[in-house]
Amino acid sequence: MSDEKQFSVGELAKHVDGELFGSEAVLVSRLADLETATENDVAYVEDPKYFATAQSTRAGCLIAPQSFTLDPTIDEESKRSSVIRVPRPKLAFAKIAALLHPPKQREPEIHASAVVAPSANLALTIYVGPHVAIGEHTQIGVGTRIEAGVVIGDNVVIGSDCILHPNVTLYDGVTLGDRVVLHAGVSIGADGFGYVRDDMGYHKFPQIGTVVIEDDVELGAYTCVDRAALGRTRIGRGTKIDNLVQVGHNVDIGERVVIASQTGISGSVTIEDDCVIGGQVGFGDHIRVLSGAVIGSKAGVLPGKIVRPGVWWGVPIVPLDEYKRRNAHLGRLPQLREEIKELKRRLDELEAK
Amino acid sequence: MSDEKQFSVGELAKHVDGELFGSEAVLVSRLADLETATENDVAYVEDPKYFATAQSTRAGCLIAPQSFTLDPTIDEESKRSSVIRVPRPKLAFAKIAALLHPPKQREPEIHASAVVAPSANLALTIYVGPHVAIGEHTQIGVGTRIEAGVVIGDNVVIGSDCILHPNVTLYDGVTLGDRVVLHAGVSIGADGFGYVRDDMGYHKFPQIGTVVIEDDVELGAYTCVDRAALGRTRIGRGTKIDNLVQVGHNVDIGERVVIASQTGISGSVTIEDDCVIGGQVGFGDHIRVLSGAVIGSKAGVLPGKIVRPGVWWGVPIVPLDEYKRRNAHLGRLPQLREEIKELKRRLDELEAK
Amino acid sequence: MSDEKQFSVGELAKHVDGELFGSEAVLVSRLADLETATENDVAYVEDPKYFATAQSTRAGCLIAPQSFTLDPTIDEESKRSSVIRVPRPKLAFAKIAALLHPPKQREPEIHASAVVAPSANLALTIYVGPHVAIGEHTQIGVGTRIEAGVVIGDNVVIGSDCILHPNVTLYDGVTLGDRVVLHAGVSIGADGFGYVRDDMGYHKFPQIGTVVIEDDVELGAYTCVDRAALGRTRIGRGTKIDNLVQVGHNVDIGERVVIASQTGISGSVTIEDDCVIGGQVGFGDHIRVLSGAVIGSKAGVLPGKIVRPGVWWGVPIVPLDEYKRRNAHLGRLPQLREEIKELKRRLDELEAK
Repeated sequence: MSDEKQFSVGELAKHVDGELFGSEAVLVSRLADLETATENDVAYVEDPKYFATAQSTRAGCLIAPQSFTLDPTIDEESKRSSVIRVPRPKLAFAKIAALLHPPKQREPEIHASAVVAPSANLALTIYVGPHVAIGEHTQIGVGTRIEAGVVIGDNVVIGSDCILHPNVTLYDGVTLGDRVVLHAGVSIGADGFGYVRDDMGYHKFPQIGTVVIEDDVELGAYTCVDRAALGRTRIGRGTKIDNLVQVGHNVDIGERVVIASQTGISGSVTIEDDCVIGGQVGFGDHIRVLSGAVIGSKAGVLPGKIVRPGVWWGVPIVPLDEYKRRNAHLGRLPQLREEIKELKRRLDELEAK
Repeated sequence: MSDEKQFSVGELAKHVDGELFGSEAVLVSRLADLETATENDVAYVEDPKYFATAQSTRAGCLIAPQSFTLDPTIDEESKRSSVIRVPRPKLAFAKIAALLHPPKQREPEIHASAVVAPSANLALTIYVGPHVAIGEHTQIGVGTRIEAGVVIGDNVVIGSDCILHPNVTLYDGVTLGDRVVLHAGVSIGADGFGYVRDDMGYHKFPQIGTVVIEDDVELGAYTCVDRAALGRTRIGRGTKIDNLVQVGHNVDIGERVVIASQTGISGSVTIEDDCVIGGQVGFGDHIRVLSGAVIGSKAGVLPGKIVRPGVWWGVPIVPLDEYKRRNAHLGRLPQLREEIKELKRRLDELEAK
Repeated sequence: MSDEKQFSVGELAKHVDGELFGSEAVLVSRLADLETATENDVAYVEDPKYFATAQSTRAGCLIAPQSFTLDPTIDEESKRSSVIRVPRPKLAFAKIAALLHPPKQREPEIHASAVVAPSANLALTIYVGPHVAIGEHTQIGVGTRIEAGVVIGDNVVIGSDCILHPNVTLYDGVTLGDRVVLHAGVSIGADGFGYVRDDMGYHKFPQIGTVVIEDDVELGAYTCVDRAALGRTRIGRGTKIDNLVQVGHNVDIGERVVIASQTGISGSVTIEDDCVIGGQVGFGDHIRVLSGAVIGSKAGVLPGKIVRPGVWWGVPIVPLDEYKRRNAHLGRLPQLREEIKELKRRLDELEAK
């Protein structure tokens, strides 16, 4: 949603370390897909099944894999796009996107309607939007952008170049690293869900720990990360979490983990580096997911489990192969039943003899 | 929650094109259910199993189906209600409700605490509540009501007679049609969840498309509709979505679709017109749900599937009949096992002979 | 996140009615776990498998069960902690936590940026934070704390000593009891999800009832409680609900119920007192869960069911024992298939003779 800048195809080829075919002077400023792209656009193709479509794209700049060869006939006719060949076109396209569409820039400003506690320590170059509230002793680093309606408690530490989208809530005492992106309404530091029961009802188990979000983490809209009971809840560097995800108290998520929408993680779960978790997955408490495990959408993991590397599906989880086998067997149950009836009939006959 | 207006039963009968029995002058002003209704209330009965209850309701006006006949004895005693007979009482009741309880009206006003960008283009007759923020070049149509704490980005287009409940977030560049209702905290236009991995970690795949919400759409509290990567995410005219639903990037939802709470829809899913989707359903990416399909709550649909018209249940989905059959077979598994044991015993015996 | 107060171990022992071993003069001010505790901290042990760890804790005060005996050798060396013995250490620890870490206190104040309707009736001793909006005829009781960005509609009643965390939305006409805690972004009173279809599309079924939240209820971040169609939605005294839970219209939840994250409850469900509901559970409409039932995470309950006391799992729910049995049978399906093949082979042989 930012203003357009123009780049020459030559600059882009250099940026992604690609091999350029065609004029390097062509100017482009936007991204598009193969079908809708025009001469001002960059498009990409990676899967060979779209090579034919890519041949006829009108994109000014096409990013393609090394196995992609230009069809000279079409080229003649269409005065078609320059092509940049790279080993991983989608990745190169993402890098070019970051150049063409950098995040929205805001001039440094503390909006007049923002309420900032006197003891808060804000870097000079930050943007604080309308109706933001910032608590006592809170620190915010350079280049951070805080959009309208965000509420930040006391004793919060926020690094540099973060983006807090509208209506985010940071409770007291939580910590964000650098380049953290929080989408609309993310909640960090609400009380974990822990109670002790007696005859009268439930007493809150203390929820007095904190939350640490490391560098380059991105959290989707309305994702909730609860405060630790004691100690801390942690989300590791470079981890990306989708919308409406629940992260319970004392959860420890490693680096470069990906978690899709609406997954729920109970208290004291550990998810190690480089795991990939689908959407609507449920984790009981005290689970440890070992580095490199992949858990399919809608899976359920029982409390206390250790999940080894590999691909896991189902409720409760089993290895993907076994899940498929079970499902196939399930589908064949009516047939199995018929086979048993047939065996019984044959046995009856034999016995009758 | 609006002020009460009084209507005569005659007016109501005309409004729903019904057949009136009893006095047309009776005045009513509120809605109630059969048991708690009093002379000032309208109640309805549709299911014959509640006809007995309906005979003794004290409602001033009863909406009933054509098969409902008054019991004259009871009528004598209770000086009971006027009755309006219509083919579809629940529908008539809903139409009368819209008359008796119209949405809250607000006098046109831009609250002094609202922050409106100078280039925003607001119709004269809108209401903008306290602590609202409205960005540059945003347009808002006549009769639209924007409640407290709503944050609207730059280049947003909002039609006429919309209601945005408190703390809604609209990101830059999204479009709403007319009569759109967004409940508390709806988020429209956050980045879709797409990344490309290299050795260093994850790079954001560009999320620079937009979102279009068509006329008469209603979205529940904290429902999230993500921005398209390229192109647009769309929710079609007259579609109704419940609370806490996730709509991923580039999803295309048709007209008059109904989606219950906590369902999650991954990127690039198409749901055609007139589908009905239960709660807590999960959709993998690139699914196409054909017009008229019904998907039961908690179902899971695998990526890339085409879902034909009919009723679907389970994870992964199967036709409802098959789902029931499988569940019945599942319940009989222990018995099946016993039968196999018995067969084995008989075979052992036979072989021993 | 509150300031530290110091208490003597003697005071704490009295507070929890425990048996004190060691000096009663030791001062402590914080909570910690066994491993990280230092002389200023209180820690607890309940499970005998941690008794060894507890022997060597450096906590100034250890809460332990009556079966825990001090090892005098270690005691000599480490000048170790005073010990308070109680029947239920975790409960005593929670009670001490409430003493050491009381909820944050705010001086009574109506922040200058808050917008309060002239007819609202606020007790003198409440705190209203920045950018709060409070509607007409709304009443708020003594000691209640309303954090930044909260939006409260017209005709709302809020009891005393409640805490409304940032960005909560209360729609018109809802009622909260005393000591209610609402975490960030809780939505109370949005329209229930009910429509009636005709040829043109969907008409809203009237959603004009209300919501009553009784005393001592705590609701997690972004939990949604919808307004009743007619009548009221109710959450009973002492009930605790986690983040991102959906409570539909006309739901009636009893007292001391516990519901974990991301569970969804459809319209007109009744959950009686003292039930325990896991996370990501789905309830169809018009279910009645009888007092004392326990429903496991990710379970699904079909519309109209009556759920009796006991422990229930699965989709659709079955008693836990049966769920386990079914799962075991499922795992053995491939083997079952082999057994049937073997039987067939033997039958073939017999028949051939």
